[in-house]
Amino acid sequence: MTNSIKEPYLLTPGPLTTSHATKAAMLRDWGSWDDDFNQVTADVRTQLLAMAEAASGEYACVPMQGSGTFAVESALACATDPNDKVLVLMNGAYGKRAAQLLHMMGRRYVTLDKGDYLPPQPNEVAVLLEQYPEITSVFLVHCETSSGILNPLEAIAEVVHTHGKTLIVDAMSSFGGVPISLAKTPIDVLVSSANKCIEGVPGFGFVIIRKALLEAGKGRAHSLSLDLYAQWEYMERTGQWRFTPPTHTVVAFQTALAQHREEGGVRGRCARYTRNRDALVKGMRAIGFGTLLEDGWLSPIITTFLSPNDPAFEFNAFYAALKSRGFLIYPGKLTEVESFRIGCIGQLDAAVMETLLVAMQDALSEMGVFLSSHSRSA
Amino acid sequence: MTNSIKEPYLLTPGPLTTSHATKAAMLRDWGSWDDDFNQVTADVRTQLLAMAEAASGEYACVPMQGSGTFAVESALACATDPNDKVLVLMNGAYGKRAAQLLHMMGRRYVTLDKGDYLPPQPNEVAVLLEQYPEITSVFLVHCETSSGILNPLEAIAEVVHTHGKTLIVDAMSSFGGVPISLAKTPIDVLVSSANKCIEGVPGFGFVIIRKALLEAGKGRAHSLSLDLYAQWEYMERTGQWRFTPPTHTVVAFQTALAQHREEGGVRGRCARYTRNRDALVKGMRAIGFGTLLEDGWLSPIITTFLSPNDPAFEFNAFYAALKSRGFLIYPGKLTEVESFRIGCIGQLDAAVMETLLVAMQDALSEMGVFLSSHSRSA
Ligand SMILES: Cc1ncc(COP(=O)(O)O)c(C=O)c1O
Ligand SMILES: Cc1ncc(COP(=O)(O)O)c(C=O)c1O
Repeated sequence: MTNSIKEPYLLTPGPLTTSHATKAAMLRDWGSWDDDFNQVTADVRTQLLAMAEAASGEYACVPMQGSGTFAVESALACATDPNDKVLVLMNGAYGKRAAQLLHMMGRRYVTLDKGDYLPPQPNEVAVLLEQYPEITSVFLVHCETSSGILNPLEAIAEVVHTHGKTLIVDAMSSFGGVPISLAKTPIDVLVSSANKCIEGVPGFGFVIIRKALLEAGKGRAHSLSLDLYAQWEYMERTGQWRFTPPTHTVVAFQTALAQHREEGGVRGRCARYTRNRDALVKGMRAIGFGTLLEDGWLSPIITTFLSPNDPAFEFNAFYAALKSRGFLIYPGKLTEVESFRIGCIGQLDAAVMETLLVAMQDALSEMGVFLSSHSRSA
Repeated sequence: MTNSIKEPYLLTPGPLTTSHATKAAMLRDWGSWDDDFNQVTADVRTQLLAMAEAASGEYACVPMQGSGTFAVESALACATDPNDKVLVLMNGAYGKRAAQLLHMMGRRYVTLDKGDYLPPQPNEVAVLLEQYPEITSVFLVHCETSSGILNPLEAIAEVVHTHGKTLIVDAMSSFGGVPISLAKTPIDVLVSSANKCIEGVPGFGFVIIRKALLEAGKGRAHSLSLDLYAQWEYMERTGQWRFTPPTHTVVAFQTALAQHREEGGVRGRCARYTRNRDALVKGMRAIGFGTLLEDGWLSPIITTFLSPNDPAFEFNAFYAALKSRGFLIYPGKLTEVESFRIGCIGQLDAAVMETLLVAMQDALSEMGVFLSSHSRSA
């Protein structure tokens, strides 16, 4: 895979390297009131429901302008009310952010905080649901991008469903790249965005949500712009977005969806990302980098590597050295150990990963960092 | 001015017809964490302050993801608190929306509602400010896009300033196309967005606001995503947007800003939009259409025309007939009379307007609508 013009590969969890065709779809202006654009919106919504294997009678897909956080905020505001109590499963920055959102909108919640890199376990969730019967909903981040861990969504969903609670999933960085089936897994609300595994450009997120929850969310929103029910109701009635949509981003996303289908849908994309991850992890370990997580918890989305102890290693210098070689990596987001992250999503393949590994070795020797080549993990 | 590919001209108040160069700037992906992108953000913020003639020591420019309404919501949440009382000057949909926003966020307000097409007058504002001394802030829409009226910003700003109140201006559809100088006119908060007179693509708005108001806004926001203070504080500290920015839209906007400068800045652009409006209004009156507003209140942004009484005239058919001829017009937004709107902003010039007028006559005769050619106004 090659870039259309000389620009670095984005080894980040999004915004990521998108195809030229996706970007080229933005070379046209669209009237946001016009039927041609409304058809794009309708098509995108239908395709997303299909990708989630969500029955269109039961679920709706509602896009929301802004970044992914805007979509999470609008989903939480719609799907919970001040009488609810939400169990927030946290093991990183995005679980924490959900708790902060609930706090700001005056919702009650309890948390299960597993720290930086341990997954919440289904039995722990079961214990809490029995201990606190007033809990009405559970919030889970599928791929906690701050470490790269893939949390056990299916098993937790079963527990939540068995207890008759609502499950809200932040699948921002996993949806479209890791199989999620709402036909098989009981999920009530799922949030993701344009610029992750579907490989669009940033500008909006979307919520796949049970229609019954949308209807219950009428009048609940704390914000006019982020009122998910109102966005849905308006869109159903007029075919249009309630306020000006990011037209070019939406059209680019439709093009990205076509490429996603051509690649074999979620399974095809997951296979490529997994190959990227495998090539990356193998090569990095060979160089001497350790992964934060044990193999079983590594996602095909992004991997956290521990910074070497060598005093000659300094993240900013390493970043700059890799940038000058055509690769942008991502800083770590852990609270306790020094780390950095490398994304496997976007228009990248195993060959790109091999070039990255060469650049990595080159950068390290330029910096005077010498690692002993063995596998380490936390 | 010609479009790069065969697509209709958007005679709308945005999203509008943008230049090919602006769209072509989106043919690259940017790391949202990377310094190259941070420089784009910093440059855009500086240029917007300069365009507003706002002293950078006193004012800051804070961009906000989402549509224009998101930026208005974030500005109101930051610049007012529950002890404040806001006088909302209304003469159309966007003044009404501000009142709705204040209502949702639990702010006290009073309104001066002038209906669909009358401007709020400075002396009326003075009377209200004396009558209700507890009013702390005044909200004004500069160009009320629902009718196209250009409200008397400078004179009202003087009154508000004399009374020692805060002035919050929705200059969504006018900023960059109609001169506004914060050096000369006492405005405390000004809101606009990427896809209006600066001719970028939609995806974010921005707020030019006194730093003292930003600082007072710390902790006030009702929404995490729309917390203007937090966005500012984070951006000042890190150079980055707080949550994922619409990277492509921001870079397109920087390109649009360069074209704005080349055209002679606000004055140059205002001159072109005024020529567009003059050609349009003259031609439409010659065909037999009346304008809603008297000449003195017409903005160079968008003009509302009254629908003819002829029973053969039907907006949807008229829209379709013009669309098939390469022009998208805009529906009316008045509560009392049937109307439609034609925008003068975007990559359009008087020659495009002349072609539109020909298409218009053609469409009318196809529809069997015959107007007597004389000037009418409400
Ligand atoms: C799991 C998860 N949730 C939420 C977000 C927030 O998205 P945004 O930065 O678009 O607001 C991200 C961003 O990477 C994420 O990975
Ligand atoms: C004066 C004014 N205010 C606010 C808005 C709302 O902007 P948006 O549709 O981007 O939310 C508009 C949109 O046209 C406008 O013209």
